[in-house]
Amino acid sequence: MESPPFRVEKVAENFAQVRLLYHDRHLRPGGTISGPSLMALADTAMYLAVLAMIDPVALAVTTNLNIHFLRKPIQADVIGEARLLKLGKRLAVGEVTIYSAGDPEPVAHATVTYSIPPRRETS
Amino acid sequence: MESPPFRVEKVAENFAQVRLLYHDRHLRPGGTISGPSLMALADTAMYLAVLAMIDPVALAVTTNLNIHFLRKPIQADVIGEARLLKLGKRLAVGEVTIYSAGDPEPVAHATVTYSIPPRRETS
Amino acid sequence: MESPPFRVEKVAENFAQVRLLYHDRHLRPGGTISGPSLMALADTAMYLAVLAMIDPVALAVTTNLNIHFLRKPIQADVIGEARLLKLGKRLAVGEVTIYSAGDPEPVAHATVTYSIPPRRETS
Amino acid sequence: MESPPFRVEKVAENFAQVRLLYHDRHLRPGGTISGPSLMALADTAMYLAVLAMIDPVALAVTTNLNIHFLRKPIQADVIGEARLLKLGKRLAVGEVTIYSAGDPEPVAHATVTYSIPPRRETS
Repeated sequence: MESPPFRVEKVAENFAQVRLLYHDRHLRPGGTISGPSLMALADTAMYLAVLAMIDPVALAVTTNLNIHFLRKPIQADVIGEARLLKLGKRLAVGEVTIYSAGDPEPVAHATVTYSIPPRRETS
Repeated sequence: MESPPFRVEKVAENFAQVRLLYHDRHLRPGGTISGPSLMALADTAMYLAVLAMIDPVALAVTTNLNIHFLRKPIQADVIGEARLLKLGKRLAVGEVTIYSAGDPEPVAHATVTYSIPPRRETS
Repeated sequence: MESPPFRVEKVAENFAQVRLLYHDRHLRPGGTISGPSLMALADTAMYLAVLAMIDPVALAVTTNLNIHFLRKPIQADVIGEARLLKLGKRLAVGEVTIYSAGDPEPVAHATVTYSIPPRRETS
Repeated sequence: MESPPFRVEKVAENFAQVRLLYHDRHLRPGGTISGPSLMALADTAMYLAVLAMIDPVALAVTTNLNIHFLRKPIQADVIGEARLLKLGKRLAVGEVTIYSAGDPEPVAHATVTYSIPPRRETS
């Protein structure tokens, strides 16, 4: 799949906000942004929140993503806000709340785990 | 995102097997099939397993998807095998094991929940 | 298992706070509060958050619980704070953050789904 | 909580089977085995499957447990069967299917992640 059109909105301590630009290609029949696009948004927002806290994590990999789809998104941009819950030496865990722009009710909520590579070891 | 190139391989009682055709667009930097493509594969395989058991489920929607990324896929097609664990009146729950074609070790494992619409009620 | 000694601290709109009283029986070898006790706390806090919003839900049942264990709890009471993310006609989804009393870093984070029984239908 | 009365039934390569003995204390109002008891069973079965493959893992800790409750257990022992999906240097991931003794339909299904301690590093 082509990269969805993400735009980084904000990166702060233990936090990242990423916008998925509304675009017809993300629509599935019925007109909402697809589940895989929301999962990609959750993963990307979490990755940026990790990246903000530790450098060169090019090799950090997602090991788990759990997403609840809560409401049908409206036809608008979608915003993912990732907050780190733990940043350990080996694992980073965070939660991501996803909103339609302009609507306070979340459309999805994810928890995401990243494995952080050690200096020398391989997993 | 454009629909990834899925091919239905087998549908049987409580079971569906779907192949994600290997294609450069699915690669992310580093050369593996992307996480979102694997999540889309898990969701699609589960949807077909549900569809095989009950008809007109056009409105069935994914409410939860939990995926563990286990190994880096090789450069080959990826196959998702969905098995229903429960098919209730309101919820269907299944697990999906994902393999690289020709390799018996799973690259990912997902559990997926679909909400099944009632005849008259709306959720 | 005997009921763990829970105490309801606060119930508000879409929210419940429950305290698990520190007690030797909850300790496993090594001295921390056991994972199952934290899972029971998450489930109970979520149940109360649902109960606060809709009455007679005696038949509401947990359909999914996903918990991340983040840090070893200290030897103190443990507090679970549940927030509803969605309260639909059929499903309620919430997140629960769990802290050791007196320590702001979460020891665990859960997402919990409850199935809400319809008036006439059975699932 | 007191330890539930578990009995190890079988341990083999990448596999463990554990029985939770039926006992009134595990019942919650309504008469079924409690969710926390099923979660404890899933965790224990997975721990034994890991322990069968690598020794001294006294410090291995559960980092994630995701459980779907599928059916009400009958009044009988409950059996958890854990299968490892991945045994890496740092993480072990497995799935656990839980049955009521004598009934082939699963009552619950869990995926469990254990963090495996390194020789010298701390996470």
